[in-house]
Amino acid sequence: MLSVSQYRNVFLEYLDKKIINKEPANLYEPITYILQLGGKRLRPVLVLMSADIFDSSYKKALDAALAIEVFHNFSLVHDDIMDDAPLRRGKQTVHERWDINTGILSGDAMLINAYQLFENYEGENFKELAKLFTKTAIQVCEGQQYDIDFAGREDVRIEDYLKMIEYKTAVLVGASLQMGAIIAETSSVNKQAIYEFGRLLGIAFQLQDDYLDAFGDPETFGKQVGGDIIENKKTFLYLTAIQKAAKGEARQLEDLYSIQPEDATGKIESVKHIFEKSGAALLTKEEIKKFTNQAFLSLDKMDLDENKKKILKNFGEALMNRTV
Amino acid sequence: MLSVSQYRNVFLEYLDKKIINKEPANLYEPITYILQLGGKRLRPVLVLMSADIFDSSYKKALDAALAIEVFHNFSLVHDDIMDDAPLRRGKQTVHERWDINTGILSGDAMLINAYQLFENYEGENFKELAKLFTKTAIQVCEGQQYDIDFAGREDVRIEDYLKMIEYKTAVLVGASLQMGAIIAETSSVNKQAIYEFGRLLGIAFQLQDDYLDAFGDPETFGKQVGGDIIENKKTFLYLTAIQKAAKGEARQLEDLYSIQPEDATGKIESVKHIFEKSGAALLTKEEIKKFTNQAFLSLDKMDLDENKKKILKNFGEALMNRTV
Repeated sequence: MLSVSQYRNVFLEYLDKKIINKEPANLYEPITYILQLGGKRLRPVLVLMSADIFDSSYKKALDAALAIEVFHNFSLVHDDIMDDAPLRRGKQTVHERWDINTGILSGDAMLINAYQLFENYEGENFKELAKLFTKTAIQVCEGQQYDIDFAGREDVRIEDYLKMIEYKTAVLVGASLQMGAIIAETSSVNKQAIYEFGRLLGIAFQLQDDYLDAFGDPETFGKQVGGDIIENKKTFLYLTAIQKAAKGEARQLEDLYSIQPEDATGKIESVKHIFEKSGAALLTKEEIKKFTNQAFLSLDKMDLDENKKKILKNFGEALMNRTV
Repeated sequence: MLSVSQYRNVFLEYLDKKIINKEPANLYEPITYILQLGGKRLRPVLVLMSADIFDSSYKKALDAALAIEVFHNFSLVHDDIMDDAPLRRGKQTVHERWDINTGILSGDAMLINAYQLFENYEGENFKELAKLFTKTAIQVCEGQQYDIDFAGREDVRIEDYLKMIEYKTAVLVGASLQMGAIIAETSSVNKQAIYEFGRLLGIAFQLQDDYLDAFGDPETFGKQVGGDIIENKKTFLYLTAIQKAAKGEARQLEDLYSIQPEDATGKIESVKHIFEKSGAALLTKEEIKKFTNQAFLSLDKMDLDENKKKILKNFGEALMNRTV
C-alpha cells in the first residue's frame, strides 16, 4: 500500500502522460487546461487506494481513476457556466478564458471521454464500471438541478438538502471507491460496503464543508469564510437554524437571508450568532459525527483484513479532522 | 420487413411509452419536450430497419434506436445554445423556453441517458454498442467544433469541409445502421459494410442539403431557401465556387460573403449566379452522385440476400430523390 500523496503522484504522472493535444485544438485545449489546474485529486486517489486494498494492482485502476477525474472536471466546467463563476482554483474558468460555447462543447467531450476510458476493462468489469458510472453521473446531474431549484424555493426541508448533497457530491465518492473494488473483483458484499463507506463519508465531508464555510479558520479554509451566508445559501446550518431558532430569531434569519449588502461583515456575524444560539452549529457538528460514524460502521460489513480496514478508517479520520 | 413509416410508428409508440416525467421536473421536463417536438426520426428508423435486415427482431433494437434519438436530441439542445437559435421545428428551443443553464444540464442528462439505454443489451453486444456510440459521439463533438471554427477561418479546404460534415452528421447515420447489425449479431464484414453505406449516404445527404439550401424549391424545402448564403456559410458549393470561378468572380463572391444586408434577395441571386456560372452547382450535384454511388457499392460487400440489399438501395434512392 502507498500513502495518499504517493497515490496522488502516481495518478498525476499518468494524467500527464495521457494528456495530449489533439485536433480540433479549440475542443481539446480547454480540456487540458482544466485537467491541469490542480486540485486535491481526491476521487482518483480513492479509486487507486480501493483497488489496492482489495488486492488488485492499483496500476490496473489508473484508467478508471482518470475517468472519474475527467468526469469530475466535466461537471466543474458545466457548473461554473451555470454559476457564472469567474474563477476556479484561483485561475480563470474555461468559459471565462474561452467562451460559454467552448465550455459546453469541451465539457460534452469530457463526459464522453470518461466513458471511453472504461473501454480498457474487459468483459463484465467494463459493464459494471459503465453502469455504476452512468447511475452516478445521472445522480450528479439531478443533484445539481436540486441545488439550482433550492435557491428559488422557500420550502426546502433538511431531508431534501441531504439528498441534494448526497447526489451532487457523495455518490461520486462512493462510486470512486466501488470502482476500485470492481477492478479488484472482490465480493458483492465488499463492493456494496465500500460504496456505502464513501457515500456516507461524502455526506459528512460536505456537511463539514458547510460548517467550515461559516466557522472555519480564514487562515486555512480554502474558500472565503462566510461565502454561503453572503450568497444566502440554504445549507444544513441554515435549515436547522430556521427549524430550531425561536420565532423571532428565525424571522430575523429569514430577513438576513433576503439581503445582499455590499459589506457583509455585519450580516455574517449576525447569522453566525443565530446559527450558534439556535443550536444549529452544535447539531451540524453532531450530524457530521453521525454520518462519519455510520461510514465507519459500514467497514464492519467487509470481509477484509483488519489492517486494511484501519487504513480506510485512518483515511476517513484524516479527511474529517481537517481544519481547512 | 416493415415500411419506413411503419418503423417510425413502432418507434414513436415506444418513445411515448418510455417518456416519463421524473423528479427533478426542471431537469426532465425539457427532455420530454424536445423528444416530443417531432422530426423525421430517421436515425432510430435506421437502427430498427438494419436489425430487421440482418434477421433480428426489430423489437430487440428499440432501446438502441431510442439511445440514438436521445443522443441526436442532446446534440440539438446543446447546438441550439451555441448557435443562439430561437426555434427548432417551428417551436421554441429548450434554452429559449427555459434558459441556457437548463439546456446545458438537461442535455448532459440526455447524453448519460443514451448510455443507460444500452445497458439492456447483454455481454459483448453491450460493449460493442457502447464503444461504437462513444467513438461516434466524440466525432460529432469534433464535427461541431470544426463547424464553429470554419466560420472564422478563410483557409477552409474542401477536404476540411467534407470531414466536418462527415463527423457532424454522417457518422451517426453509419452508427445507427451498424447498431442494428450489432444487435442482429451479423458478421464483421456486414457490420463494416452497413456502416460505410450509412456514412457515405450521410455525406451525400448533407451535400444535397447544402445544394437544396440554394437551389431547392421554396414550396417544399423545409428550411428557408438561401439560409446558408444569408449566414455566409462556407458550404461545399461556396468552397468549390471560390476554387473554380474566374478571379474576378471569386473576389466578388468573397465580397458578397462579407456582408449581411437586411434584404438578402439580391445577394442570394448574385451568389447563386456565381455558384452556377463557376460550375460549382454542377460539381456539387456530381459529388452528391459520387457519394451516393459509393454508398451503393458498399452494399456489394455484404453477405446478404439481394432483396434485402434492394431494400437498402431503395431507401437510399428515396432519401436522395427528395426535392425537399
